[in-house]
Parts: sequence; C-alpha cells; structure tokens
Amino acid sequence: MNTQKIVIVGGVAGGASCAARSRRLSEEAEIIMIERGPFVSFANCGLPYFVGEVIKEEEDLLVASPEIFRDRFNIDVRIQSEVTKIDREKKLVTIRNMSTGKTYEESYDSLVLSPGAAPLRPPLKGIDHPSVFTVRNIPDIRSIKEMTGNGQAKSAVVVGGGFIGLEMAENLHAVGISVSVIEMAEHVMPVLDREMATMVNEHLDSMHVDLYLGSAVQSFENGPDNKPVVNLASGEKIPTDIVIMAIGVRPETSLAKAAGLDLGPRGGIAVDGFMRTNAPHVFAVGDAVEVDGFVMGGKRLIPLAGPANRQGRLVADVILGKEEPKPFRGTQGTAVCGVLGMTVACTGETEKSLGMLAKEGKGIEYEKVYSHPFSNATYYPGAQQMSFKLIFAKEDGRILGAQAVGLKGVEKRIDVVAMAIQMGGTVFDLEEAELCYAPQYGSAKDPVNMAGMIAANVLRGLSKIVHWNQLPDFKGMLIDVRDPEEYATGYAEGAINMPLETLRQNLDKLPKDQEIWAYCYVSQRAYFAERILTQNGFNAKTVSGGILSYWAADADA
Amino acid sequence: MNTQKIVIVGGVAGGASCAARSRRLSEEAEIIMIERGPFVSFANCGLPYFVGEVIKEEEDLLVASPEIFRDRFNIDVRIQSEVTKIDREKKLVTIRNMSTGKTYEESYDSLVLSPGAAPLRPPLKGIDHPSVFTVRNIPDIRSIKEMTGNGQAKSAVVVGGGFIGLEMAENLHAVGISVSVIEMAEHVMPVLDREMATMVNEHLDSMHVDLYLGSAVQSFENGPDNKPVVNLASGEKIPTDIVIMAIGVRPETSLAKAAGLDLGPRGGIAVDGFMRTNAPHVFAVGDAVEVDGFVMGGKRLIPLAGPANRQGRLVADVILGKEEPKPFRGTQGTAVCGVLGMTVACTGETEKSLGMLAKEGKGIEYEKVYSHPFSNATYYPGAQQMSFKLIFAKEDGRILGAQAVGLKGVEKRIDVVAMAIQMGGTVFDLEEAELCYAPQYGSAKDPVNMAGMIAANVLRGLSKIVHWNQLPDFKGMLIDVRDPEEYATGYAEGAINMPLETLRQNLDKLPKDQEIWAYCYVSQRAYFAERILTQNGFNAKTVSGGILSYWAADADA
Repeated sequence: MNTQKIVIVGGVAGGASCAARSRRLSEEAEIIMIERGPFVSFANCGLPYFVGEVIKEEEDLLVASPEIFRDRFNIDVRIQSEVTKIDREKKLVTIRNMSTGKTYEESYDSLVLSPGAAPLRPPLKGIDHPSVFTVRNIPDIRSIKEMTGNGQAKSAVVVGGGFIGLEMAENLHAVGISVSVIEMAEHVMPVLDREMATMVNEHLDSMHVDLYLGSAVQSFENGPDNKPVVNLASGEKIPTDIVIMAIGVRPETSLAKAAGLDLGPRGGIAVDGFMRTNAPHVFAVGDAVEVDGFVMGGKRLIPLAGPANRQGRLVADVILGKEEPKPFRGTQGTAVCGVLGMTVACTGETEKSLGMLAKEGKGIEYEKVYSHPFSNATYYPGAQQMSFKLIFAKEDGRILGAQAVGLKGVEKRIDVVAMAIQMGGTVFDLEEAELCYAPQYGSAKDPVNMAGMIAANVLRGLSKIVHWNQLPDFKGMLIDVRDPEEYATGYAEGAINMPLETLRQNLDKLPKDQEIWAYCYVSQRAYFAERILTQNGFNAKTVSGGILSYWAADADA
Repeated sequence: MNTQKIVIVGGVAGGASCAARSRRLSEEAEIIMIERGPFVSFANCGLPYFVGEVIKEEEDLLVASPEIFRDRFNIDVRIQSEVTKIDREKKLVTIRNMSTGKTYEESYDSLVLSPGAAPLRPPLKGIDHPSVFTVRNIPDIRSIKEMTGNGQAKSAVVVGGGFIGLEMAENLHAVGISVSVIEMAEHVMPVLDREMATMVNEHLDSMHVDLYLGSAVQSFENGPDNKPVVNLASGEKIPTDIVIMAIGVRPETSLAKAAGLDLGPRGGIAVDGFMRTNAPHVFAVGDAVEVDGFVMGGKRLIPLAGPANRQGRLVADVILGKEEPKPFRGTQGTAVCGVLGMTVACTGETEKSLGMLAKEGKGIEYEKVYSHPFSNATYYPGAQQMSFKLIFAKEDGRILGAQAVGLKGVEKRIDVVAMAIQMGGTVFDLEEAELCYAPQYGSAKDPVNMAGMIAANVLRGLSKIVHWNQLPDFKGMLIDVRDPEEYATGYAEGAINMPLETLRQNLDKLPKDQEIWAYCYVSQRAYFAERILTQNGFNAKTVSGGILSYWAADADA
C-alpha cells in the first residue's frame, strides 16, 4: 500500500487527471487538490462557446464538481485556495484560503504543480479599462457574457488572432456582434506558416470580420459612454464596446520561481521526462512546463489540454505506480481551431519552427509539398477543397509536420499524419496508407495519400518541384498548363498558357537551354506536364500547389 | 526510354491508375486500355447515390472520359471491347469489339488484368425476373433508376446487408421507397463482429427499414402486375416492386483461368508482392486478385478501391520504373459505410477473421476492449456517442483491428487506428496519441486515447476485464455501480446495485471468497470500482463496455 500524501496545485486538466489517476493507483494515498478559482475541472476549452451561446448554461462548463472528486475519488478538494509558498526542505506548502484570508500549512510527500498559464496582459496604458477582458476561467467569461448576452455590446475588438482570439471572434460574431481582430503578424493563426494562414484571413474577411494585420495596440482610452477606444501604433483609433485580449499566455511560474525551481529557456518550469522539477518530490505538468518538441527536440511551451492530461497521469504513475512508466514522449503540437465554419489544424513542425531551430543550430534539410485535395469524392455533393502542406526530411522522407485549412475533413487528415509522425513515419508510409473510403467520407486516393504520393515522387526523383516564393526571381520559361478559360481568369506573372492536352504537339516551341516551370490550378496537371517534358529532354519542374498556393501566398504580400 | 507495349484489361480503379501512372513513367510506352463496358474510370462507389438522387446527373459518375485518357495521357482506350483470350506463349490477347462483334488480336510486352469482381447471382429459381437487379456499373444503375426515379417502385427488397446492400437501402429509402433488407447472418454488416453490428440493426429498425435477419432467399416468382415476389426459406413471401441482389461479389477470373493463371485458395487470381501472376509478363490488380492480409497474413479477397489504385500504380512502377519498387504491403481491409446517417467503419482483423485464422492454425492470443466514447466534448452540443471495439495482441499490445459504429466522428478514429496498425503500433501508442482537440472536434482524451488507455490498463495488470458473453455463466457477485435511477431503467440479470459513490462505505457487505464483477453504463465507473475493490483485497473485474455492450450484444441473441 502506498500511503503517500500528495498535494496537487491546480484543479484543471493536468491537476485533475493526476488526482483521479492517483486515486485509481492507491486507495490509501492522501490526495489534496488545491484550486485558486471557484471551480475545478472546468471546460476551459469551451469558454468561448459560452459567449457564442453554443453552450447555453454555465453549468455545462463544469466537467466534474468538487463533490464528484470527493465522493467518487475520495479527494480533498479545496477551491478558492491559493498555495503561496513552497518549503522544499520541510516539504510544506503554505495555503491561503481566499474566502477567509487565513493561511495555513500543509505537508506533502509529493507535490504536483499544475498552475497553468495566464493570458498576457502587457502594461499598456489604459489596459485596466473595465471593458478590456482576458479569457481564462469561468468568472472571466461570465463578465464577458454580461456585456454580450444582453445586446449591450454591439462591437468588439479581439486583440490577437491565434486560437483563442479567433474562437472568441467566432463566438462574438455568432451573437451578432461586429468583430475586429488585431494581429501583430501579417496573418492570423501565427502558429501556421503564412501562405497557409492567408486562407483564414480571406475567410474572416468574407464573413465581415475586420482584420487589422501587422498592427499593434499602443494603448486603450476611455471614450464616450465609458466605452473603450483601441489606439493602434499606426495612429488609427477603433472605438468599440468590448475588448478581448488574446495575445497569448505565459506559464504561471511565480510560485515555482519563489521556491527556487529551475525554469527553462522558454520561461516555463523545467522538468525531466518524468515531469520532475529540480526539487526532490516536486513535479510540474501542463501549460506551466516546458516540454520537448517530439519531432525535432528543443524545449517548447505548448499549452494544450491533451498533453496536460497525459502528463498528469504520468506523474501519478511515477509517484504511485508499481513500475517506472515510460517517460513523456514530448509534444507534437497537434492542434485544431474552428474559425467561423472553417477548420485550421496542424501537427509537428512548421517552416517557422524549423527556421527557429535552424537559427539555434538545430536545423534539418527539409522539403515541402502543397496540395489542394477535396474533403471527399468530388462527384459526391458537398465536397470541399482544402489546402494541405506537408513538410518532410529531405534525407529520408521522415514526416516533420503538416498543416491544413478548409471547411470539411481537415482535422481528420491532420490526426492521421499526427499518428504517422508519432510512429516515425515517412511520406512513403502516407503514400501507402489505407484509410476509410466511401464517396461521402473521402477519396480512393485520400488527401493523406495524395500528399504522400507527391512527396514520394519528389524524393524518388520523379518530380522536381519549386515553390511560389521562387517565381519572382525565375529567369526561365513559366508555363500555365490549364485550359485557356482557366488561364483567362488570372495567371502568374510571365506565365505562358500551354494546355496540358496540347503540350505534346507543341514541344518544338519550348526551349531546351533553360528551365521550364509548369503549374496549373493545384499542380496535378503540371506534374503530368513535367513528366512529358522531362522525358522529352527538357529541364522541367513543377510549381508545387499550383496557382492556388501562389495566390494564397501572395494574398497579403 | 522504355518503349514497352502495355495492354490493360479493365478501365476502372486499378486499370485506370495503372494506365495513367504508366504514361507518367514513360512517354514512349504504347498503352492500350480495354474496357468491356461503355465507360472507363467511372465512380463505381458512387452508383448507389445516383439512385438516391444525392448524385443528380449520370455524367457526374464519370471520373475521366476516354478523351481525357487519350488527350492527356496518350492512352489508346477501347471501350465496349472484351478480351476473350490470352495467348501466353505468343504474348497476344484476342479482343472482341462488342459493338461490331468482330475479334482481333493485340500483342503485348506486359499485360495487366484488372477485371474486377462481379456481383453474385446465385442460380435461384426466378432470379431472372426483370425486376431483380445487381449493382456493378452505370447500365445497372440506370436500369434501377428507371424504376425508382419515377415513382414506379414503391417498395424494394435488398438481398444482402453488407456495404453495397446497405448503401442501396439508404438510397432507396432516401427517395421514399419502403425498403426490406434480407440478410443470411444474424446481423447486417457481416464484416463486423455481431455485437458491433447490432447498433446498425437497431438504427435501420428505427428508420423503418424492415430487417429479415438469419433469412435466406429460396426463390423469386412473378406476382401480380409482373412484380417480383421474394420467397424466403422460412416460407414467408415478400411481394415487392424491385429486388436488389447485393450478397457479395466474386472475382472475375474466367479469362485468367482459361489462360492457365494460378488462382489462390480464396478463388482470386494469385499474385506475388509485385502483382505478378504465374505467367511471365502478366500482372493482375484490384478486386480480382488475392492479397495478403496486412495484419496477420493469409490470403484475402478485399474488394476496395484504394488498394486497387495502389496496386495499379505499383504495377506501372514494376514495368516501367527505374528501380524495383517496394512490394505491395497487403491490405488491412479499412472500410467505411454510411447507413442512413450512421457510420460504420473498421480496419484490420475482427474476432471473426481471427477465428477463421485460428481454425487454419494461424491464431493469435488476443484481447479486446469495448468503449462508448463521444464524438467530441459532451459539453459541446451535438456530441454523439459511438461504439468502439479495439482488438490487440495479448503478448505485446500490438493493435490487430478496430471497429466503430456511430453517428459522428467514427471514420476519423478508424483512420487513426489504421495508420497506427500500418506502422506496427500498439495500444500504448494509442494511449499516447496526440490528436486534434477542440470541443467541437474531439476530447482532450480522444476516443482513440481512451481505447488505448483501457487496453493499456489491462495489459499492465491495472484492470482485469471480462466480456458480455461471460455474464450468463458467471457464478460470483455482479454489481452495477450506476446510480439507482440508472439501475432502475434496466440492468444485467443478477446484478446488485451498488453506486460507485457508496462503494467505499459498503465494502463490508461484499464477499472476499468469490469474484466480483462490476459494470456501469460504459464501464468507466466500473473500472474505478474495480480499483477500489482490488486495493481492498477483493477479487474484482470490470465488464468491458458496460451495460451498453451487454445490451448491444444481447439485442438479437
């Protein structure tokens, strides 16, 4: 019997998972879960949807109550209680009861920190305006709902175009509020590479969400009727009814820092593969810790619920399990976001993250392919085209990451690639994947297969590809192999129209002394053209992703 | 330059893929594609949806025309032409032009057979009734549509409750036709294990599709107004307007057999890993061939479009590629079927297929777990519960197969498991999978994670499980750990109600000298109960999948 006394700081995701798993491993352990807020185990990922009235009742956001933890798990839950100090030597924490203001001490055999991450609130002038909110917990969202739920707020400014920013934009929009999004980067969803995110920009635009890209907030001021005005660095002023700050989160490390726990290079709590901090018997999990990037290593801050839950379970296994568990395998950063009907998903590395690693001397030679497959068989009504980007190692085809954006069937493909990455898969594995196919669900060559096939063709030397960003400097001949009617709708600068069907008859008009780059709409026909040309002695290449990727990349340039 | 002359017999899926890939590999090859029907590369998987008027126009079923093959790929397509003979010695085929009736010979360097599989039409009395149809090609579906598209048919009998049978049932139902399904097995979807398919039975029932399970058709007769009457072996007569025979397919092997090609143990054309038949320079692909089961080996007939396409590509690579490709990796049998709003999907082995392998001396010690996860976070509206079954090797946790049935998010999970199986993954890998999570898409612990966690708990000895089929013979104490209100709605025979929350207070009422089996609705609470009991010295086990699996399994028993 393991009769440890375990104190867990933080009662959401990682902390709650650790508490429940600990009890399943030991009936005898004393388990105390301390939570600063009024609720434990609430659905923080659901908060924006309460504003959008998709989730109607506040109580629907409560996944498990303190009573369930007590009755089902025999866990001593103390809400509205803050751990203010850790005494590592004596193995004691100091707890402040936030209702009574009283403090007391509690000893521990094992201490698990799951404090989460707090929304950034930079010290901008006027940020304390009562209508400037952040989104972290139920009291936050309750305050926002008080302004949005009764028609009081007609307009909103969301500062930050990442996951939470866009989820808030979606939900504010859903209740008829006119929404502006301010984003410092040149595109929303800064976690994506630019040319993938431009589709999201355009979608928001089409849904009448006002985008301020490459824009920084300088200050807030109080306008007429005590409503906030957002001042941009550009000098522009945006009067509004409510402001949501969603520019990111920072790990909650004050308690850890005060206790002398090591932080990592990204500012999160440093832990080993068993989520152990540098202090004996002190663990940390969730959004507050730095984890290893699964694909390429390197410390990362990846605030996601799934990994937090698994880390919580792992710590319970370390403390109470019969055998030592396998260490945490790192995080891939698999994520999805719904944006007004559009789905954005990604897993693994992006060109951005690979670029940052390269700067740190941890680069890898990679290639990428773009594709624009449909969610399902095009002959079945409702099929939707998505944009897909696959990044892989040049040396061996190992999958490094994938991004996808579209209206339907998007996160399914990223999930499959996520599993392939987890297993060390290559593009050749994607090529051969055997996935569910019926016309309403997919295609006999699934988008995952297609991306794998394109990449495999490149690695096998069957296709040479270039990318949208190389076109401006290209000195050879650029051919657009679409039909004339398609060409007439717009084409890449300098491109000559030479429809695929006529190519074999026109080979004598093409130069052998310079490169020929071919593209079409998505570059399937361009690949066919490249094959015809190459076999006829031309030096041909395909523009990956075709005019669609070119346009997408160019959209904001 | 490879100037081979390649003759391809069959212009759909495998044949068409082989033709296009061949051209991409060689501009010089002579490629002739012979197709018996009037169309090449048509959407055979879409045929049922034309009857349902989901796909409105017949031309939408044509994926690529002979003209596209000619203009884009420089392929000589000959439709309505049948290869009647193969002369292996002289490397000649005899072709009959079905329009003119004339025959002629064509030589080949490589011959690729992609004849497909034909719907079974057993020699039952009256099967030649003009209103008894099968579904294989556009002329078939055109004939059916002539009766269903104008209100002429008010009722239909579908013989066979597999993929095509249920897709036809869905589409006949969609146009207001009263549908009966006759299935020889005790449940529809015979590819699934029984307890997984019962949910489909119930769903069809709720949609007013009449099911005749465990029923065989004995004969057809001509009834009043020349309408068919279906005579069951039971003596029952079902008068109807139209009959669809969908009891399965058999590989088209007559041409191959006549040419002395080897067939395999299941009656399909025998091929090696490079799709080579025993005749030099003669290849075969698609529904007509036997392939290796990927998970457990053994020859299988698996008529699926995805593998057919990949086989077609592979043959082109073998014939024309610069390097020898990797052999075909076998087929997992990943499949999906939409059934009146429900999705049924599977990958890998089932208990049925493992049972057949065991009979052949190729068995494996396996375990299974049932779960009933929701498609996405339950606090997000529209979440739907599915049934999930995961089968894995007892020795090392290697995933052997998975089946899932539900209204939403079903095939996505099977796709992820399919990728894990392809990579040789274990239940421990599923436990650690990092998948897309936002509340409208999934759960922080995705159904894939949950199944992996349950299985991993079993393999690590943290949970001992039993199954629904063991309950009738159980002599120990069976406890239902749900709340009294749930228990009152129905419980397993002999079960005593002992809510999880009260269990710790009632331990003294439980016996130490016999096994205690616990269940709840889906057996999550039962697992908690098992942990409490085990740690208190009881001999406890969890009934996997809870009362839901028990009910599902029992439904038709």
